[in-house]
Amino acid sequence: MATIFSRIAAGEIPCYKIAADERHFAFLDINPVAPGHVLVIPRREVSYIFDLTDEETAALHTFARRVARAVGKAMPCKRVGMTVIGLEVPHAHIHLIPINTENDMNFAKGKLILPEAEMKHIADAIAEAYANLDD
Amino acid sequence: MATIFSRIAAGEIPCYKIAADERHFAFLDINPVAPGHVLVIPRREVSYIFDLTDEETAALHTFARRVARAVGKAMPCKRVGMTVIGLEVPHAHIHLIPINTENDMNFAKGKLILPEAEMKHIADAIAEAYANLDD
Repeated sequence: MATIFSRIAAGEIPCYKIAADERHFAFLDINPVAPGHVLVIPRREVSYIFDLTDEETAALHTFARRVARAVGKAMPCKRVGMTVIGLEVPHAHIHLIPINTENDMNFAKGKLILPEAEMKHIADAIAEAYANLDD
Repeated sequence: MATIFSRIAAGEIPCYKIAADERHFAFLDINPVAPGHVLVIPRREVSYIFDLTDEETAALHTFARRVARAVGKAMPCKRVGMTVIGLEVPHAHIHLIPINTENDMNFAKGKLILPEAEMKHIADAIAEAYANLDD
């Protein structure tokens, strides 16, 4: 059975899409720890990120780097943090989170529920920044 | 002035070394959030990880993948988590942390201070696993 992330990437489940290429997909985390929290996945269903091959690892992280730069341009933040935990959804995913303090990446502090209009606005802003990256 | 991590990689400051190649270095975090918490750095001094080039990003993460697989073999854990925060030391670094629950990656819960003999034992075990990786 396809993972929930594969179904999102295939368009079977709606999402706030940020960017995609043939092998990767990026979209807003529906329960963000901070506004602009994005998930980046490989389209291939691999549960554990370190089970990706070297080549897949390289491709995923160069794609994620571009998404992270777009998040940093679109969202007010000092930096974009990155984390992979991997104990819940069995499909490897990188969290990219705009941060101003270390605690902004604390998953234990509770998730946000943002209004649909705000999620759409954030996704559009990051997607536009992604489309206009110059590096 | 060289960053503290450059001085560690150059051998000017002692560390519990895990692995190295021409462009990367891995060593135990001296204030781990869990036993076996490793830092992976590029030798080149770049403060923000997303300022690395695509090629540097690919090389760093394929090196980190091998280190993570060694951590997973040497330490009892469900998975190895990965995080980059980057608000403190101005030299990009990836945290690799053996985890059993999401909270094992919570930096807010306080750092451990492990006896030197235990740090040495952990470093030796991960370094040995790294030297014997078959994938």
